[in-house]
Amino acid sequence: MREILKKLADGKISIKEAEKLIKSFQIKEIEDLAKFDLGREVRTGIPEVVLSIGKSPEKIAKIIKACGNKGLIITRLNESKYKKIVTKLPKNCEVRYYKEGRVMIVGKHEKVVEGHVGIITGGTADIPVAEEAKIILEEMGCKVSMVYDVGIAGIHRLFRYLRKLIKKNVQLLIVVAGMEGALPSVVAGLVDLPVIAVPTSVGYGAGGKGIAALLSMLQSCVPGVVVVNIDNGFGAAAFALKILKQINSPSSP
Amino acid sequence: MREILKKLADGKISIKEAEKLIKSFQIKEIEDLAKFDLGREVRTGIPEVVLSIGKSPEKIAKIIKACGNKGLIITRLNESKYKKIVTKLPKNCEVRYYKEGRVMIVGKHEKVVEGHVGIITGGTADIPVAEEAKIILEEMGCKVSMVYDVGIAGIHRLFRYLRKLIKKNVQLLIVVAGMEGALPSVVAGLVDLPVIAVPTSVGYGAGGKGIAALLSMLQSCVPGVVVVNIDNGFGAAAFALKILKQINSPSSP
Amino acid sequence: MREILKKLADGKISIKEAEKLIKSFQIKEIEDLAKFDLGREVRTGIPEVVLSIGKSPEKIAKIIKACGNKGLIITRLNESKYKKIVTKLPKNCEVRYYKEGRVMIVGKHEKVVEGHVGIITGGTADIPVAEEAKIILEEMGCKVSMVYDVGIAGIHRLFRYLRKLIKKNVQLLIVVAGMEGALPSVVAGLVDLPVIAVPTSVGYGAGGKGIAALLSMLQSCVPGVVVVNIDNGFGAAAFALKILKQINSPSSP
Amino acid sequence: MREILKKLADGKISIKEAEKLIKSFQIKEIEDLAKFDLGREVRTGIPEVVLSIGKSPEKIAKIIKACGNKGLIITRLNESKYKKIVTKLPKNCEVRYYKEGRVMIVGKHEKVVEGHVGIITGGTADIPVAEEAKIILEEMGCKVSMVYDVGIAGIHRLFRYLRKLIKKNVQLLIVVAGMEGALPSVVAGLVDLPVIAVPTSVGYGAGGKGIAALLSMLQSCVPGVVVVNIDNGFGAAAFALKILKQINSPSSP
Amino acid sequence: MREILKKLADGKISIKEAEKLIKSFQIKEIEDLAKFDLGREVRTGIPEVVLSIGKSPEKIAKIIKACGNKGLIITRLNESKYKKIVTKLPKNCEVRYYKEGRVMIVGKHEKVVEGHVGIITGGTADIPVAEEAKIILEEMGCKVSMVYDVGIAGIHRLFRYLRKLIKKNVQLLIVVAGMEGALPSVVAGLVDLPVIAVPTSVGYGAGGKGIAALLSMLQSCVPGVVVVNIDNGFGAAAFALKILKQINSPSSP
Amino acid sequence: MREILKKLADGKISIKEAEKLIKSFQIKEIEDLAKFDLGREVRTGIPEVVLSIGKSPEKIAKIIKACGNKGLIITRLNESKYKKIVTKLPKNCEVRYYKEGRVMIVGKHEKVVEGHVGIITGGTADIPVAEEAKIILEEMGCKVSMVYDVGIAGIHRLFRYLRKLIKKNVQLLIVVAGMEGALPSVVAGLVDLPVIAVPTSVGYGAGGKGIAALLSMLQSCVPGVVVVNIDNGFGAAAFALKILKQINSPSSP
Amino acid sequence: MREILKKLADGKISIKEAEKLIKSFQIKEIEDLAKFDLGREVRTGIPEVVLSIGKSPEKIAKIIKACGNKGLIITRLNESKYKKIVTKLPKNCEVRYYKEGRVMIVGKHEKVVEGHVGIITGGTADIPVAEEAKIILEEMGCKVSMVYDVGIAGIHRLFRYLRKLIKKNVQLLIVVAGMEGALPSVVAGLVDLPVIAVPTSVGYGAGGKGIAALLSMLQSCVPGVVVVNIDNGFGAAAFALKILKQINSPSSP
Amino acid sequence: MREILKKLADGKISIKEAEKLIKSFQIKEIEDLAKFDLGREVRTGIPEVVLSIGKSPEKIAKIIKACGNKGLIITRLNESKYKKIVTKLPKNCEVRYYKEGRVMIVGKHEKVVEGHVGIITGGTADIPVAEEAKIILEEMGCKVSMVYDVGIAGIHRLFRYLRKLIKKNVQLLIVVAGMEGALPSVVAGLVDLPVIAVPTSVGYGAGGKGIAALLSMLQSCVPGVVVVNIDNGFGAAAFALKILKQINSPSSP
Repeated sequence: MREILKKLADGKISIKEAEKLIKSFQIKEIEDLAKFDLGREVRTGIPEVVLSIGKSPEKIAKIIKACGNKGLIITRLNESKYKKIVTKLPKNCEVRYYKEGRVMIVGKHEKVVEGHVGIITGGTADIPVAEEAKIILEEMGCKVSMVYDVGIAGIHRLFRYLRKLIKKNVQLLIVVAGMEGALPSVVAGLVDLPVIAVPTSVGYGAGGKGIAALLSMLQSCVPGVVVVNIDNGFGAAAFALKILKQINSPSSP
Repeated sequence: MREILKKLADGKISIKEAEKLIKSFQIKEIEDLAKFDLGREVRTGIPEVVLSIGKSPEKIAKIIKACGNKGLIITRLNESKYKKIVTKLPKNCEVRYYKEGRVMIVGKHEKVVEGHVGIITGGTADIPVAEEAKIILEEMGCKVSMVYDVGIAGIHRLFRYLRKLIKKNVQLLIVVAGMEGALPSVVAGLVDLPVIAVPTSVGYGAGGKGIAALLSMLQSCVPGVVVVNIDNGFGAAAFALKILKQINSPSSP
Repeated sequence: MREILKKLADGKISIKEAEKLIKSFQIKEIEDLAKFDLGREVRTGIPEVVLSIGKSPEKIAKIIKACGNKGLIITRLNESKYKKIVTKLPKNCEVRYYKEGRVMIVGKHEKVVEGHVGIITGGTADIPVAEEAKIILEEMGCKVSMVYDVGIAGIHRLFRYLRKLIKKNVQLLIVVAGMEGALPSVVAGLVDLPVIAVPTSVGYGAGGKGIAALLSMLQSCVPGVVVVNIDNGFGAAAFALKILKQINSPSSP
Repeated sequence: MREILKKLADGKISIKEAEKLIKSFQIKEIEDLAKFDLGREVRTGIPEVVLSIGKSPEKIAKIIKACGNKGLIITRLNESKYKKIVTKLPKNCEVRYYKEGRVMIVGKHEKVVEGHVGIITGGTADIPVAEEAKIILEEMGCKVSMVYDVGIAGIHRLFRYLRKLIKKNVQLLIVVAGMEGALPSVVAGLVDLPVIAVPTSVGYGAGGKGIAALLSMLQSCVPGVVVVNIDNGFGAAAFALKILKQINSPSSP
Repeated sequence: MREILKKLADGKISIKEAEKLIKSFQIKEIEDLAKFDLGREVRTGIPEVVLSIGKSPEKIAKIIKACGNKGLIITRLNESKYKKIVTKLPKNCEVRYYKEGRVMIVGKHEKVVEGHVGIITGGTADIPVAEEAKIILEEMGCKVSMVYDVGIAGIHRLFRYLRKLIKKNVQLLIVVAGMEGALPSVVAGLVDLPVIAVPTSVGYGAGGKGIAALLSMLQSCVPGVVVVNIDNGFGAAAFALKILKQINSPSSP
Repeated sequence: MREILKKLADGKISIKEAEKLIKSFQIKEIEDLAKFDLGREVRTGIPEVVLSIGKSPEKIAKIIKACGNKGLIITRLNESKYKKIVTKLPKNCEVRYYKEGRVMIVGKHEKVVEGHVGIITGGTADIPVAEEAKIILEEMGCKVSMVYDVGIAGIHRLFRYLRKLIKKNVQLLIVVAGMEGALPSVVAGLVDLPVIAVPTSVGYGAGGKGIAALLSMLQSCVPGVVVVNIDNGFGAAAFALKILKQINSPSSP
Repeated sequence: MREILKKLADGKISIKEAEKLIKSFQIKEIEDLAKFDLGREVRTGIPEVVLSIGKSPEKIAKIIKACGNKGLIITRLNESKYKKIVTKLPKNCEVRYYKEGRVMIVGKHEKVVEGHVGIITGGTADIPVAEEAKIILEEMGCKVSMVYDVGIAGIHRLFRYLRKLIKKNVQLLIVVAGMEGALPSVVAGLVDLPVIAVPTSVGYGAGGKGIAALLSMLQSCVPGVVVVNIDNGFGAAAFALKILKQINSPSSP
Repeated sequence: MREILKKLADGKISIKEAEKLIKSFQIKEIEDLAKFDLGREVRTGIPEVVLSIGKSPEKIAKIIKACGNKGLIITRLNESKYKKIVTKLPKNCEVRYYKEGRVMIVGKHEKVVEGHVGIITGGTADIPVAEEAKIILEEMGCKVSMVYDVGIAGIHRLFRYLRKLIKKNVQLLIVVAGMEGALPSVVAGLVDLPVIAVPTSVGYGAGGKGIAALLSMLQSCVPGVVVVNIDNGFGAAAFALKILKQINSPSSP
């Protein structure tokens, strides 16, 4: 901290830069529970997000209350757990819950990231993961165009809808697929947009729970497919935000 | 044996049937090495084949000599091993060796199975496995049309060549692919021919050595894709022979 | 579409062909849920089927209503989920539910595929998977002969019943087995019919949940055994339909 | 093809667009070997690349000769195989070989993609994979700044060099690491640039051959890390090219 | 036993040594259930602990009653099982239950081990495993300083709190982390204290349930990280006790 | 030791018993290399055997020389390593080498175990593992009857030869099989002899290197099949020796 | 059948032998459910046993009723399922249920096998699996001596109790252990009795659910340890029965 | 850096402390190859070590030359690679090579760590890994007592030698074992010294290459066993150094 202030005093950084630097390393202690990284959004462009898995409703409510009405995102939250949390929150707490995407949002985020993302799913069962990505992106200010159920079993469906997406000038694609997970590869072989592949845990037997889809995407014979973990719609959205920030307000190379 | 002859004597089976039954259970002992199942072709429609893995050139040569000039097939035979075997065979032994498909054929098979099979490969590196299947099928009398390097990275290549195959009236397809192994699923979503999927050990890292391809094919979101083990071109051909036999001289249902 | 009509106008294809082509690429959008591939049956010979895993009763009911009384098949549907769906359907909706095979059928399919399939199971616990295959095949018009509980623990049971099946002139065999999964290999070593192996998730400990059975079938020392994923009775039936179509109305090679 | 020309005639697309479309679906047949997808670069922004694994020197030489002096890239090529290929090429064939990165380049690519990429490696043994990415990026026209051996064992090394990279205004980061693969997560928690993680096969014992690194990257507690397969430096570069294209000449959202 | 007494009689060992030796091999039979190793604490420095997994409340209650009010530790005990046990115990049975750490303690242990241990967790969801370790250590007499939620996503949090721990003169560190499990490596690269790494089952998809964390820790590029099994907070504490005993009352080398 | 002598002096054990007890715990130190467990044969009925994997020819020669001409068995010894060892041994060292079974025997064992074992192999490639078992058994004094290449691909071969083995009154069966490993299950379903299953590393692709065979044998639907590790012919023989000792000189129950 | 009768008529076999042969291949069809292998006990020495996993109470009750009061064994049957079955059985059906071992026995078996088996468990949680083995063995007529909770954490416990077992003249040992599964190896290194190792699913984290125990037993550095699948107490008992039959009424070698 | 000097100037730290801090963050750049972490030993108590896997002899020689005659340790270095390196070094370079432990040491380390470590191996084939640990420990100044080949196959060997080690007052134990890896558990159940378990890649088939040993050690039923990766003798030594430093010059708790 002192170092930052010293640089400011020495005129090496501007007040705005100093402010940003200070913010970027602030921590909020939540008693016996968490050290909230308040600066993460400033530092990395992605807000801190609470993954609800392995945390009791009591703990999550405690975190929400500690953070106040700042835009907080909680993911992988099923409906019954959500309902328990809500009963523990103060009445004026502004809350939205998206059942399909299992996301809860407290307060509001600034709409900081411009851009337009296309999301494509292989099947109907992949929609919840795609929804998770969509909610995060829209929450941060992006436009999202979504196309669902165009898997490779009827590949003509894909062509029709992929063309529509491209005409809308989306800047990158998130492709969500379970089972054999071939859709991102097919898409990436057709367009020059960056493709982020998200395997889902749809599937059973050998290679089930998303393993075949994940390995398929890692082994893609089409160069330039990147992958996040199984069902990690949020991760894909987070990465998309980082790209869009570069696209729409790039560093000068 | 006695039972068969008794049925013949009683007029319950014809001489031809008796002959076939007797043949179907004959065994040739090859000293200290093998019990050759002479009746396998009669019984199952597929000739006994020697998988060369784990057998020394000496042993393979011994088996060849014991079988005489009957049409014998040896698979997975690399060139250097083949050369060692040949030096141990009598001069009049009629031998063909296919380097790409790593198959050696001794003598001649009767051309017993009619039919026309299409073989498709995803990439150049999958060709040896496809060749193995092609050699077996042609050896048994089938017509084979082969299309190579039409993987999903450039899916328009597939459409063009798949249409050609179908116009040739192939009766079933063997689709050979490594890496992410998506090709058989894409093909099976487009045509009403039976598709036998063969994963190859092309690929590296996670899901490499054919694992991603195999799991992809098992998880296919397109119904009706069946699979053989990694690199098992011979297995696909053997199954194709059984189908073609039913297609071209079917049992009456 | 225009291309098809143009070919018709130019006399390059007949009206019937044009009709088939048009049908084969039709899609029915079901709002926010699915893009039903109406042409799949025309194109691939296998009707579109809804795998119920990962889809809520609400969504499945929505799909059923959107499709009307056309013959729709829903698989892997347990009884309690089925009951929830039924309450959401209109009264005149014609529905059959097969508890053992966990299959629900809406409306009626045309009986389009002739043929006779033998289904064999290793044990009593494999019957539900075999039932799934049987229901699909019979729904599409095939004759099915089923033999259950003839696993290799008492191999004489197999011989007796296999002989009976063959006398009935079945045209191919679906062999369903869990545990060590050896039954398809033993069967394929005895008969010249195509054998489709279905591993089931019967088994526990190392190699349990169908893994040992699947690997066994892939490693079969008997050539010409093809495999579908664990518990995928529907997949085996779908492939059988494609073969039967070729057998009973083959393309001319 | 006819469809494209028709659109041109109807004034629906410009001559330039038509030309691009035509190019984007051209295929070059290389006898008995490959169907070269000439339009891939036009279509996807990434040139077709030959992965040398599983292809004999003869075959690779044949492909090179067929493609002429067009900028062709061959990856994963060890030195001894490279030397065998060179002897089979015509004298005027313009060839560069990068031993560390195991890449061979034939002819020249147009420098089509602007931008600046930072590449960071965890250790010395990760350098070959980083080199592969660097060569591809530079070949396509990008500027690359590379920092090596700043793994988490001495995390202060990272801070010093990461700051330098950021001052150079790199637009995205490729982070290459083996062993426990933690570096990309640490980096992504510090900066708001997109981070592409590349696990390497450095490591031994449990989790060796890159498995621990890959899983670590997929499980990253830092949101927005995307992953390619183990040792896939080329894949990371290919994806970076797609992003840079959007950054430096974005579609209008 | 006789041998020990004989040595005592011969003056080869002191009465105290004899007593210790005799104690160290005593067994308490608990009918049809267990052979309680009464001497384990004497012999190995760690009290016998009952892992409650796979044991019914009835059996655990029986063991507790058999051991009397001696300090007994029961681990991995969820609350509902705990409640069932308590109803089966005599009223005067002195019992403490720690819900977060899922540990039940009966009676009291002598505070035999001096020392000061630092425990660090990556995230909030890792706290229960850290608690298990903390309870065991404190029960045996150690001082524990705990720092939670300082994972690598915001690495500046770590530096701040690690410095505090070191100033408190902790003698060794237990570092608990799930997901990608990088925290123990980062810590061990910064300090010269022994670091015991505990992977937790926090995480999902590929490498989930603690697998990525475990492999990461085993593959650590920082030398001198040792690992216990996933979620084994008790194991880490037990090992720490053995070290502290050596540190604070070392054998003379 | 003193305890044993004391018991002898007290008349609690006979001289013979004392001698056996003393022998059973003797150790021969081989400098910087091994502590040879001279009493193992007395104690467990199985001679100490040197597994040559991971030991240099120098070390093995050193062990042989230290043991003198006592019957020593060395397993998994390929021919080239054997030849290196022999050059380092004194001339009068009595040595036999079995190339197929990769076993070297130094000196002679007493023929201590009576009995008759049947060994059956699935294929020709399984013979080396069967040979290893055979050599050990014969070396210890057992009679062995071997039947090879009677795998389930032609199951009639099995029936014929199994009947012959049973007529010879073998007392237990060792069944050696690779690939899908079904043979031990089929055999155990037919006879009431104990069956020891030995999976071999014959096989490729998914489930290769003996994994499918091992899992198959563990999952056997036939009760009473026990398994040793892949290729562990020696282990099967060692267990057989223990059974035969009980059969032919049983403890009185 | 005719063949057997013919042999009888020709005096080649005695009436007793004929009767045994006929019995050994009898099958009882249980409608739509099972083909009960009535001859299994005659043929293999082990009665047919119903593994209850994957079978509904209705089906099991149907099988019991079909078999009448013949001694039938049902394994892996939890208490609630047992209670459902009992309500569906006729009142006079003679039934015993063993809760700990999860075994249900209907009617009575002849006590056909003599012998004395020692069963040893590593921990308290392994007892249910040991019980399963004990019940089967006692049901068939064997004497069983059981020792529990003598795992390697306090190895002196083992020595004391192993000595007792040996003094009782047990003829073979079944050693049941979970966690690291080292107990069977330690035991087999001390005694010359055959040791059948049974891994149990006790354990958690990496190597949990019995995997570490199973692999440990397969990798045992003590020769002559054989293994059954995880939790397969019945399998161990079945194999023990086959050995005891040979021990106590051996074939003459 | 400036911050440190400032603290010195302000009297907040002593000159010695400042010196240590400065040293602890120094980096030596080795051109295009490595950033040598000169402060690691100061910071963590363990010298930087070069793992030779994946580094060419050229690179290693370059690193050695850059570091001068400072005590540098290179591990996992086979003899032929060592010989290539030596030819590239200047003549006055002081070098020792330990063939068995595959360690090369350049120059000399200060003997900074006091203490006495016991190392125990299960078998002869585990010695190289134990040697690696021994060389590192002795190089840093520790006393090492080693006992080899006392695995559980003859557990009496262990008792005899373990007693000897304890009499020598070793302060902690490193236990090295392959195969089933049970030795560390047995040892830790007998003594109150800290036990560091090192699995080795000795073993074959299922659980081979150290997997069974590793899982066994992680699953140990004896509390307080910690584990390093397979064959990681160096890692065990590094951790031992950190403990010994605490034991012999502990922080005051």
